[in-house]
Amino acid sequence: MAQEPDGNKPLALGILGYGGLGQAMAQLVARRQSVRWVAVADRKGYGVHPDGLNPLSCQRVYQERGSVGYLEPGGVLSETSLAEIIPQPGVNAYFLALPNLPNTFIASVVQQFLAQGWRGVLVDAIKRTSAVEQLCNLKPALVAGGITYLTGCGATPGLLTAAAALAAHSFEEILQITITFGVGIANWEAYRATIREDIAHLPGYDPAQAQAMSDGDIEALLAQTDGKLYLENMEHADDVILELAGICPRQRVTVGGVVDTRNPRKPLSTNVQITGRTFENKIATHTFTLGDETSMAANVCGPALGYLQAGWQLHQQGHFGLFTCAEVMPRWVS
Amino acid sequence: MAQEPDGNKPLALGILGYGGLGQAMAQLVARRQSVRWVAVADRKGYGVHPDGLNPLSCQRVYQERGSVGYLEPGGVLSETSLAEIIPQPGVNAYFLALPNLPNTFIASVVQQFLAQGWRGVLVDAIKRTSAVEQLCNLKPALVAGGITYLTGCGATPGLLTAAAALAAHSFEEILQITITFGVGIANWEAYRATIREDIAHLPGYDPAQAQAMSDGDIEALLAQTDGKLYLENMEHADDVILELAGICPRQRVTVGGVVDTRNPRKPLSTNVQITGRTFENKIATHTFTLGDETSMAANVCGPALGYLQAGWQLHQQGHFGLFTCAEVMPRWVS
Repeated sequence: MAQEPDGNKPLALGILGYGGLGQAMAQLVARRQSVRWVAVADRKGYGVHPDGLNPLSCQRVYQERGSVGYLEPGGVLSETSLAEIIPQPGVNAYFLALPNLPNTFIASVVQQFLAQGWRGVLVDAIKRTSAVEQLCNLKPALVAGGITYLTGCGATPGLLTAAAALAAHSFEEILQITITFGVGIANWEAYRATIREDIAHLPGYDPAQAQAMSDGDIEALLAQTDGKLYLENMEHADDVILELAGICPRQRVTVGGVVDTRNPRKPLSTNVQITGRTFENKIATHTFTLGDETSMAANVCGPALGYLQAGWQLHQQGHFGLFTCAEVMPRWVS
Repeated sequence: MAQEPDGNKPLALGILGYGGLGQAMAQLVARRQSVRWVAVADRKGYGVHPDGLNPLSCQRVYQERGSVGYLEPGGVLSETSLAEIIPQPGVNAYFLALPNLPNTFIASVVQQFLAQGWRGVLVDAIKRTSAVEQLCNLKPALVAGGITYLTGCGATPGLLTAAAALAAHSFEEILQITITFGVGIANWEAYRATIREDIAHLPGYDPAQAQAMSDGDIEALLAQTDGKLYLENMEHADDVILELAGICPRQRVTVGGVVDTRNPRKPLSTNVQITGRTFENKIATHTFTLGDETSMAANVCGPALGYLQAGWQLHQQGHFGLFTCAEVMPRWVS
């Protein structure tokens, strides 16, 4: 029998990337008992503290001075913060809150972990199909390297994908899975990278173009649509994740939505509809709808934390490799 | 590293109990490639066939002669069918489609499996909190005996409970989980045991009383309410299952619904509402609603089959003991 995980051992968590999602994860973890936030990195530096980092002081330092590398004690300024934080001991798991720009960036980060012989849990909230496919290619290396990697563990892919995978079981054949999200944020500047990733999904844009846009370019674009981004048939990894889980061909999964960058109220209720045919040959649609008052940060970071905990359990049981949000039930973190 | 399961090895499935749910599971499995239905038992007999049983001929024999023990070949008439089917080789997993009447019955069945030294996967679609608690007491014996037992794997507990467990991750604290089901069946006689279990939840009834009712008694009761059963604050294991998963105290989980025994149309759309408080101190409610055209059989047997497959994977990896629908993601069966 495989080793049972030690449920009492707190998870020592690192966060890579300290934009909106990284900061939200830090806040969220600070209020849980069984996870300790011990490491953080941004482009210009990193901070490590085995007794736990303080989200308020980290956020202040980051906002005032531009990098967590200015943290005292524990901060280190470095242009190669990622390469330097990986060998730091005592981190069980990392949440990759890095913008995946360019689209090969997350895979290149994972290769750095592999190259350094790091063992533990990695969880991303990646979006694009092609980005997940790059990670699939790394599966044998992850197995061999002793890394338990969970991909697509935010809201979509993530919570909504997992809900679809679960709901699918009422059916014999899945005909269509449609994810429609509404995101409302009052200040797009707090989610610069996320908004650029969204813009990269618009017709006529790609990740390289979106990355190259100045803040002024983005303001000008948003001014044309009253601050809203309308996204249809996005390249979203929900499709490959549901295909990998065996649930349906990826062509039957579509993702779209509306992002309002000038209003915290959601322009529509985020939902996933799962349409299938039952063994009694009835066609029906299950629907999972998120409460409008839940923010993107809550719907991304909460599930990601649950998958981190699930990944930690898998890791302690000796399960390494690549897993998706549709294969693993996230575990509650108290 | 724990052994990886052999994904190509078909799951050899047995079904204990051959009422409405057992027959539905047999039909559902017949249309999947990676699971083979090889064993079935009812009160008066059992049938085993390593190459697979035929659901149509089984159902005909059962309806015409009253027991699968009359099957040819492979049928055996026996008053101790359960005790005799357990030692039959070649069954990886059993779906316990037995009515849990009396309320200790499923636990007593599990003890028979343990006493005979059987190893494999057991999955139930049990309903009552107290029944799951009895199984919790058997956890050490299941671990020691090499049985991977998944409890509460139907619709509720089951699909809706798992959806609640998943949805909970958007929140820091769960305030209320409310499951409301609508069931419409044209012919309650096909689900005699299920209807008796429902009646046992009505004010003034308990499982012993419900079990003792004649079909005429039930007809008389249903005549008073135009064939509908209104159920509130039911003793339903969704509460203990969500508590065991750490999500919220059981008092915050309520289950109720309406069963129409004279109409296949559901009297209301089955749903679960998950209300919580996010880390940003917002109160919100996520909702998962089942399509009305999905039957109880589809929503119970489909998820149960997914949990059987997940349990088979866990078992092959050496994970034994008691698991719930809120801890394990069901696996798709092709």
